Amino acid sequence: MSEAATPAPRTRSGRTPHGRRRVRSSLALAAMELFGEQGFEATTVDQIAEAAGVGRRTFFRYFRSKEDVVFPGHDERLAEVVELLAAAEPAADPLAVLGRTAGVVLEMYLAEPEVSLKRFELTREVSALRDKEIASIDRYQRVFARYLRGRYADEPGGDLRAAVVASAVVAAHNHVLRQWLKSGGALDAKTLLREALQQVTVAMSGQWGRDDSAVVAGENVVVGVVRTAAPAGVVLKHLEEALRDIR
Amino acid sequence: MSEAATPAPRTRSGRTPHGRRRVRSSLALAAMELFGEQGFEATTVDQIAEAAGVGRRTFFRYFRSKEDVVFPGHDERLAEVVELLAAAEPAADPLAVLGRTAGVVLEMYLAEPEVSLKRFELTREVSALRDKEIASIDRYQRVFARYLRGRYADEPGGDLRAAVVASAVVAAHNHVLRQWLKSGGALDAKTLLREALQQVTVAMSGQWGRDDSAVVAGENVVVGVVRTAAPAGVVLKHLEEALRDIR
Repeated sequence: MSEAATPAPRTRSGRTPHGRRRVRSSLALAAMELFGEQGFEATTVDQIAEAAGVGRRTFFRYFRSKEDVVFPGHDERLAEVVELLAAAEPAADPLAVLGRTAGVVLEMYLAEPEVSLKRFELTREVSALRDKEIASIDRYQRVFARYLRGRYADEPGGDLRAAVVASAVVAAHNHVLRQWLKSGGALDAKTLLREALQQVTVAMSGQWGRDDSAVVAGENVVVGVVRTAAPAGVVLKHLEEALRDIR
Repeated sequence: MSEAATPAPRTRSGRTPHGRRRVRSSLALAAMELFGEQGFEATTVDQIAEAAGVGRRTFFRYFRSKEDVVFPGHDERLAEVVELLAAAEPAADPLAVLGRTAGVVLEMYLAEPEVSLKRFELTREVSALRDKEIASIDRYQRVFARYLRGRYADEPGGDLRAAVVASAVVAAHNHVLRQWLKSGGALDAKTLLREALQQVTVAMSGQWGRDDSAVVAGENVVVGVVRTAAPAGVVLKHLEEALRDIR
């Protein structure tokens, strides 16, 4: 953050990291401009490079393909997410870990708002690109689910729980991202994500992995949610006493 | 179910519905056999038709394209799901409605086990087909979410709830489908789906749409799940009385 005093490291191309990001951004923006104007299929890499004021070889220094421009660095992002989850404290709350990771994914969209907004327009128009984006979201979801399967490995129904919780976190992330994109980048997406994940945590606080075979006909499962200043232990004691007569 | 007495209606091709399904199934199986052997790209429609013992024109009476063989009738299935949701009782429990609809989607896989199992193998090998399948799952999820947005329209945070619950139902469906596919079609998928959705309902029974700004420091949210033979109303009354003193 405060590296102004030391010179930024230069890559082989002679560009600083900031310069690299600028070139990549301008290539991405030029590409999406052209895709929007003349269609994805009809646009060539040469046209994109020319519009961004660089050569064809420079294009391929930043992107592997035309499609890669729309979703730049997706593989690297996914690898980063995998690393983050692998490095998480083994005892940390799994939902908190996923929440932080979802925050990192969101950051990547927020870091280049112009590119994200253009991409949003484009994926709404070009169904092939939308399908590509959906497939990439699914990859995050599978990485999330794999992490949770490890965390819930000892629970009955742990695999189902992992699949459902991972999809819920991704759905919350995508919901917030869409709101932010629709607002033209105006909303405070990070705060919205924190609130959404908190909501998901509360809503999904029901019991997992209960043994269904033990439910007999005529029984009800009653779930109550209480907000109180009393410690959970005190509430529990009161509830147990109150329910003793009716069980 | 018991239509043996009346002759089955014939279509213009002169085939009964059962005969139509048989031709479609054998085309699909022949196609997937070839895709597996020589790759998706290298396989032609003529080869598929020949392997199934029909002509090219017959192929196009059943499928619009080579890709359509892998995911036959996806558009029709989606349309059926949209209709089912539109026809649901306005007062019905939204999760129960989605559960029934997810059951209908599952039925379509169960109706042609051989085709489903072959497709499963194929989508694991050919990433382009996997991406196509993921995109099609996403379409169901969006239809589910749209239905729930209508049902939760008056709640604060209803859109988030709709997105999360829809994704949870789809995740549970996919989890069960995958288990069934991995078992080679041996498991009782319908019972598994019912149990999985029941588990999701219990787990997601926490409160939605609470106003976060009202939570003050030092407050706890306590969630209790009770299994009892007493009616929910009786349990609620007891709980309210028990908690009156400690709130």
